[in-house]
Amino acid sequence: MSTVFVAGVGHTPFGRLQNETSRRLASAAVREALDDAGLEPGEIGAVYVGNAAAGLLTGQEMIRGQAFLRQTGLLGAPIVNVENACASGSTAFSLAVNAVRSGMSDVALAIGVEMMTMDKARAIHAIETGVVIEDIAALRHSVYGDDDVSCGESLLMDVYGSVARRFLADSGATAEDLATVSVKNRFHASLNPNAQFRSQITVEDVLGSRMVSEPLTLLMCSPIGDGAAALIVCNSQRAARRSGPRVRVASCSLVSGTNEGRPSAVSRAAARAYESAGTGPDDVDVAEVHDAAAPAELSIYEELGFARPGEGAALLRSGDTRLGGAKPVNTSGGLLSKGHPVGATGCSQLVELTVQLRGMAGPRQVEHARIALAENGGGYLGPDPAAACVTILMRE
Amino acid sequence: MSTVFVAGVGHTPFGRLQNETSRRLASAAVREALDDAGLEPGEIGAVYVGNAAAGLLTGQEMIRGQAFLRQTGLLGAPIVNVENACASGSTAFSLAVNAVRSGMSDVALAIGVEMMTMDKARAIHAIETGVVIEDIAALRHSVYGDDDVSCGESLLMDVYGSVARRFLADSGATAEDLATVSVKNRFHASLNPNAQFRSQITVEDVLGSRMVSEPLTLLMCSPIGDGAAALIVCNSQRAARRSGPRVRVASCSLVSGTNEGRPSAVSRAAARAYESAGTGPDDVDVAEVHDAAAPAELSIYEELGFARPGEGAALLRSGDTRLGGAKPVNTSGGLLSKGHPVGATGCSQLVELTVQLRGMAGPRQVEHARIALAENGGGYLGPDPAAACVTILMRE
Repeated sequence: MSTVFVAGVGHTPFGRLQNETSRRLASAAVREALDDAGLEPGEIGAVYVGNAAAGLLTGQEMIRGQAFLRQTGLLGAPIVNVENACASGSTAFSLAVNAVRSGMSDVALAIGVEMMTMDKARAIHAIETGVVIEDIAALRHSVYGDDDVSCGESLLMDVYGSVARRFLADSGATAEDLATVSVKNRFHASLNPNAQFRSQITVEDVLGSRMVSEPLTLLMCSPIGDGAAALIVCNSQRAARRSGPRVRVASCSLVSGTNEGRPSAVSRAAARAYESAGTGPDDVDVAEVHDAAAPAELSIYEELGFARPGEGAALLRSGDTRLGGAKPVNTSGGLLSKGHPVGATGCSQLVELTVQLRGMAGPRQVEHARIALAENGGGYLGPDPAAACVTILMRE
Repeated sequence: MSTVFVAGVGHTPFGRLQNETSRRLASAAVREALDDAGLEPGEIGAVYVGNAAAGLLTGQEMIRGQAFLRQTGLLGAPIVNVENACASGSTAFSLAVNAVRSGMSDVALAIGVEMMTMDKARAIHAIETGVVIEDIAALRHSVYGDDDVSCGESLLMDVYGSVARRFLADSGATAEDLATVSVKNRFHASLNPNAQFRSQITVEDVLGSRMVSEPLTLLMCSPIGDGAAALIVCNSQRAARRSGPRVRVASCSLVSGTNEGRPSAVSRAAARAYESAGTGPDDVDVAEVHDAAAPAELSIYEELGFARPGEGAALLRSGDTRLGGAKPVNTSGGLLSKGHPVGATGCSQLVELTVQLRGMAGPRQVEHARIALAENGGGYLGPDPAAACVTILMRE
């Protein structure tokens, strides 16, 4: 079983890039990752492509990767088209890791790409296909019927709103805490040139923005956007060619949700990832987590073991998860401010962590970062996410 | 790198199953594969789900596997949703093999499932999304404009028709040869209780059936249908528990097409598969190949090295590829007569070959079958398929 390293990373700007195409975004991310790794396209032995929405948004189903990668020089290699809703990118990465571990290939590439801003209403509809379809009617009833929410742009934000109300009631966290997550991640994004939103905001700005689904205001919700991120992974023979610190994939643990949701998919993925990497939550120096809405970051602190149950908000208030704290979370700006081009997010998180572990993150660098964790969730199976993936990277 | 074996297989009937659902078909195939392997759902460490058309046909995108498998007991395991057009099933299988080879899991499951008959026009449209979308307009022009074809239900059958015209002109094969492929595979299907069409036909029946796209008549084209097929693969420790002959996955080689198409995707996949398995075309005792239209079977003979270039039709005429011949091809009935529920086909081929290698194929058993080969193609990149997968199984 080969040890696996990150050989190269590429990342386009995230944002509303109406004049781009999935193909151009994919080509840019691949080119940057190849240049970073010092590899030619012909050296890539397998390619895994995460995308969530192009089928419904553009009609391009079935062979999306072949269409997106047509001008990259990668055609000819095995190309696998992967979906797992918002966890499509990390799922693609997990397959690239397996391709190298299995000895199938010395080098493999994972890419996540999403182009969503051509039509907002259709983009929201496409995101909703990450819910089991027969559940959508029931969810609409429970969300709109019982709670009298008058405004909700996206079913998934209504689901997040419902979860947030329960979380606030159970944990003693406040709306100010949720706003503080958004403020923190926007501060981080202000230091990331690839982020979708970079102007700093205050707690008052967040609380005063339009209500989307009680208690979630607009600035507590991740935006619709476009972008691509790619990683090349390789075995130790290939990795030895690269100078500077090496980033090893210590573990990559994907799970699906269950009908019961207990223990949660995120906590099960984390337990496996820690065990496989021989490490634990206290060892993590920097993390990227799936803050599709602000309260999710607080509950994920607890599911990952960064905080004890009920103490997610306390961890936030301590300042530990802000840049400069003991365990910065979402230094990229997170989904909330870096942006959330759905299929790209899982790869984007891992690009950020690789850059952090290499010590190349500039003004948002976490000092002495050695162990990094990414958590990427996708879809809704009620009450669990449909997929959760936890990856642990280590600097060697 | 673990050696990989087929631990169990499951297969539903193929056909126009209007009263079924993807979930029920998937549940039936999984249950049969688990029973065959003597395993419980909780012992499956990873699940790979091939489906091509449910996104457009039902709106269920992003987390199709979690939706289809909700009642199988498999939720909780990693579930990866895979697309590669008509090669989705073999792509899922290749990932299951990698999961075991990498040591990620002792046991993994691949399933292909497709439910297409609810609406024929939409099913045809969905199949066309296996072409790069900007090529579709150009293809329509070239097919309908230059050749004055008055009737064509499916763009892909027009593509096959165009390829067939060139093949006939170049190779000296005749329309009777194409019809003979259909007759042979229907004879095989008459011995397969899971096949969609089981009543025998004659060369005259085939040539006299409605013209779809010159020279392809209706009986030279694979039908739209529904069905599911599943395989469980495992490492040697697990395989040792099973009595009877063991079926080893000697190689599983996936490639993508190229813009040039030379050498073809199928021939590249075959070359890799033979090399990795340490075998060659003369050693193959039984094969399943992607006869989406009758002429494809003849050109695939050549691409796989079963016949020399230009001699595919001669191999057919020799009778060697008919049951009782030296190298029977498509003993299941093939896509033409067993049926072609798109995402299920790649797994279905491997189920047939496993049953053959176990000596359990009843009236369609190939005697002394020891080495089996499956070829599954998917999508159209012009001039190559978008994906091709060649798998070699060996009885031990």
